[in-house]
Amino acid sequence: MKRRLLLVSNSTLHGGGYLQHCQQQIQDFFGKNVKRILFVPYALHDRDAYSKTARDKFKTLGGGNTFRLLKSLYDYKLVTEIRKRVLEDGIPYMGSSAGTNVSTISINTTNDMPIVYPPTFAAIGLVPFNINPHYLDADPNSKHMGETREQRIVQYHEEPDTPCVLGLREGSMLLVEGSKATLLGSTKARLFQR
Amino acid sequence: MKRRLLLVSNSTLHGGGYLQHCQQQIQDFFGKNVKRILFVPYALHDRDAYSKTARDKFKTLGGGNTFRLLKSLYDYKLVTEIRKRVLEDGIPYMGSSAGTNVSTISINTTNDMPIVYPPTFAAIGLVPFNINPHYLDADPNSKHMGETREQRIVQYHEEPDTPCVLGLREGSMLLVEGSKATLLGSTKARLFQR
Repeated sequence: MKRRLLLVSNSTLHGGGYLQHCQQQIQDFFGKNVKRILFVPYALHDRDAYSKTARDKFKTLGGGNTFRLLKSLYDYKLVTEIRKRVLEDGIPYMGSSAGTNVSTISINTTNDMPIVYPPTFAAIGLVPFNINPHYLDADPNSKHMGETREQRIVQYHEEPDTPCVLGLREGSMLLVEGSKATLLGSTKARLFQR
Repeated sequence: MKRRLLLVSNSTLHGGGYLQHCQQQIQDFFGKNVKRILFVPYALHDRDAYSKTARDKFKTLGGGNTFRLLKSLYDYKLVTEIRKRVLEDGIPYMGSSAGTNVSTISINTTNDMPIVYPPTFAAIGLVPFNINPHYLDADPNSKHMGETREQRIVQYHEEPDTPCVLGLREGSMLLVEGSKATLLGSTKARLFQR
């Protein structure tokens, strides 16, 4: 399998500029010979503005709302096409946040609000596990009573036949080359197994 | 319309016991003549344990995962039945968190992780708007780069024909009697209009 993926947890890290924390990895990933990049702007509402932003500054690639992004990928029949191009032809894929979610088995472990209804939660399936981007460790001082991220992923694993979930902290990213995955960045990740 | 609803943001408030912050309102809502309560335990995985807990202590009514709860309500064909009993027969309905989400037009504004795929995001529709339970004001000191709650609801309202969203802070609840809704509790709410 030829796949080459760079799956980033988040587009902006606190205190830094857009994609600044992963700039070097992006350069290494695409190399000097890539002349054109297909940018998928579906995760935000104003696609023209989002594309312009990405084109101008090469930033926030693949971020936005995961449900909106996945629904549009299905609406335009791009899910199997992207899978084919990445897995069979070796076209490099880079995603951040929502773009990372849709590259995995399913979007069941997104943090986003379900603002639109996609035809399925099954996603492009470029890796045989799920990712939780922006992974957040529980804050013992928090007074908020919503479930912690860990509790949510544990709830997911109560369901049958659910895959591993990689909790990718902000600042981390996963480089996938064929059957080898390497964790890059400074903040590490947490692997949840059913 | 006979409906009587008590829609609570959260089951536990920081520093208090289960349903302690809304105990008086629950007593007032159900009154002295209610002998039996139908408890819907679908939002958590272990339904027997959850039911026992609720029976023993009358707590965490309707909390848990919104997707799991709504999917089970459809699996058991309870959505239209509950709607009918509440709107036509005046059976009182109380929900907290997930139980509040499923009582509205749709679960598009839940905070929960989409761990299962329901047949639709349309919900029971006991009120003509949506609610965001556990509503959280943005923390200016946070270093986390995920979207704020406000940003998520604004993204929802970028979609066409989306209803109002009531951001119900932890500690707040909505009492609905016929066509009149009253905000109870100490922390207030925030109304988002498209």
